[in-house]
Amino acid sequence: MAFAMTNGGDICDERFGLNKAVRLMGPVQLESGGTFAPLDFAYETYGALNAARSNAVLICHALTGDQYVASTHPVTGKPGWWTRMVGAGKPIDPQRHCIICINVMGSCMGSSGPASINPGTGEAYGMDFPVITIGDMVRAQAILLDHLGIDTLQAVVGGSMGGMQALSWACLFPRRVRSALVIASTARHSAQNIAFHEVGRQAIMADPHWHSGAYYSQGEAPAAGLAVARMAAHITYLSEAGLTEKFGRRLQDRPDGSKGAKTFGFDADFQVESYLRHQGLSFVDRFDANSYLYITRAMDYWDLAEPHDGVLARAFAGSKARFCIISFDSDWLYPTSESRRIVHALNAAGAAASFVELSSPFGHDSFLLDAPELNRIVDGFLRAGEAT
Amino acid sequence: MAFAMTNGGDICDERFGLNKAVRLMGPVQLESGGTFAPLDFAYETYGALNAARSNAVLICHALTGDQYVASTHPVTGKPGWWTRMVGAGKPIDPQRHCIICINVMGSCMGSSGPASINPGTGEAYGMDFPVITIGDMVRAQAILLDHLGIDTLQAVVGGSMGGMQALSWACLFPRRVRSALVIASTARHSAQNIAFHEVGRQAIMADPHWHSGAYYSQGEAPAAGLAVARMAAHITYLSEAGLTEKFGRRLQDRPDGSKGAKTFGFDADFQVESYLRHQGLSFVDRFDANSYLYITRAMDYWDLAEPHDGVLARAFAGSKARFCIISFDSDWLYPTSESRRIVHALNAAGAAASFVELSSPFGHDSFLLDAPELNRIVDGFLRAGEAT
Repeated sequence: MAFAMTNGGDICDERFGLNKAVRLMGPVQLESGGTFAPLDFAYETYGALNAARSNAVLICHALTGDQYVASTHPVTGKPGWWTRMVGAGKPIDPQRHCIICINVMGSCMGSSGPASINPGTGEAYGMDFPVITIGDMVRAQAILLDHLGIDTLQAVVGGSMGGMQALSWACLFPRRVRSALVIASTARHSAQNIAFHEVGRQAIMADPHWHSGAYYSQGEAPAAGLAVARMAAHITYLSEAGLTEKFGRRLQDRPDGSKGAKTFGFDADFQVESYLRHQGLSFVDRFDANSYLYITRAMDYWDLAEPHDGVLARAFAGSKARFCIISFDSDWLYPTSESRRIVHALNAAGAAASFVELSSPFGHDSFLLDAPELNRIVDGFLRAGEAT
Repeated sequence: MAFAMTNGGDICDERFGLNKAVRLMGPVQLESGGTFAPLDFAYETYGALNAARSNAVLICHALTGDQYVASTHPVTGKPGWWTRMVGAGKPIDPQRHCIICINVMGSCMGSSGPASINPGTGEAYGMDFPVITIGDMVRAQAILLDHLGIDTLQAVVGGSMGGMQALSWACLFPRRVRSALVIASTARHSAQNIAFHEVGRQAIMADPHWHSGAYYSQGEAPAAGLAVARMAAHITYLSEAGLTEKFGRRLQDRPDGSKGAKTFGFDADFQVESYLRHQGLSFVDRFDANSYLYITRAMDYWDLAEPHDGVLARAFAGSKARFCIISFDSDWLYPTSESRRIVHALNAAGAAASFVELSSPFGHDSFLLDAPELNRIVDGFLRAGEAT
């Protein structure tokens, strides 16, 4: 492979940059037993790989996230989902880091997923796409990193499902991960986590437009079911106190501008109703319902201790990585107790682990919001790794 | 009116007993401005009204409850929903009390609701049924109590939405209520409470079988949507710890009896998934989707302080009742903080109020489960009222 050398030895060729896509033959080994190929990857990189190839930072996205971590989203036109954390002068900085963000396998923004065309049939996979796990997503990402010539990650960073991938990376590829930053995440999905996802899946599968997943050629997607799924999930991303602060019982002003009043009907009288409906409706424009099924399933299967007879510390036995675990006190989706459980296991495994619980009224979504303390911690953790 | 006298002066005629139904002309005044008539009531009574008519205990049921508080449910064949609390030798005892439980207005077990036939058209009301409030339900109940010749209630008792009615009774009819027992309830619906209900309503209204509420003549009800609504709500009735204790991440045994394993598919692999699906599916056999819309709407409109400029204490200004407020520490639907808010307002209003937070791992549904402490408190509170 020939690399274009820029910036005094930095590696930056056509494999790197914005809006990248590549098909690799893999195959990726799946936990369900088989393999999957070919693998499409959609990804973005910011900054250049240094000559020592030691400054790669992989950012793993959450359930409904994507590779547009710091670029404008092509569908919504909105800024990247983590511009507060990623950018010039930010803790994850393209001037210091070669930042990679890959659309996860199973998703719908260009990487292989149920909406992708199956080269064997010429039609969308639909439910013929294999059910995957967080580990499968990570093994697929490793294949792309091989292609990029990146053997070792300075850091793998993620919030929520991104944190699951960061943990999985450190456990599956201990040699390739120097540090892992796990934010608002968990080492396993709880019964309540599974229950909320199951509600969402049932909402999608109850939508007659779902057609057992074969809706791509039908002209209409199961949008109503997906919107309900998103609404239910969205409540779990916010805290009770945050919802009260943001909306309380305030009524929606009328379309004619007059002051809100109870209509004694089923329109959105309360602001929180309008907000939730908007969350549901806008989501369906940018996300595939089958991807929602597959990724929630992968998350529900997530239990890092399971292959180790339930002893989480054993999952970390081979890892030499430094870990930083961060939780938010108002996160009831993946509460601090789950982060503590990870930290206890890391301690038991003799791993280098630091842990911070941050205070925020905004629940699980806090990691995506303005959080100066979070930025300071991420910055300090990454710089400590660069100094050694 | 002629009363059949039994038991040395006790009042027990054809208006009292099991499986009662009556149509009264009312009308009931509605908060939305109009009136509603005629009013169908389905109700049960246990025990006899004493000659002084001083031993009536009204039990108010929750969102999906009904009048079968201590009788076998005619659809499910299951025992009454509160046989732990109501029966011979129980805190609410037909040998001491004349117990009344009325299917709330808006519901679907015989009292007027959206599935009832509109005498004006000969067809089901559907969405022509008026949007009602908790206060409207209570004003309707007062019309039935008038018919029963019951002026004053020894106690009005309820859990969850039943507790809202108990509070509303004490505030709307201060002269008619000697004591109110409010369990696992709240004086207002929070933004999060409204949000969960809105998800359920959207699930129902997204079901193509809903037909804007006019499904009664269509042969098929919006069962899939209603099941999803029930699943989402059901999660809020249980605690995270309770779900973990009951199900954890345990897998469902296979239909052939073999041990559970991940199927890498979308069947119910986890026990909690089966449980939730069962909750959803069994609910649709006994409940009307439009009733679910109307009653959740009434609950979302519930804010006892609203007509008093947000000052809850003023709602209790006229009440001479004794209050007992009970919460459960694991109830995150109507958390203890909401019960405390009621108690503070009662104190500010100079009302006689006692308050207990009970410890239980089972979340909101604790009030329906075996809770000896709850029974002792209810028993003590009712007997204290009888002694005076």
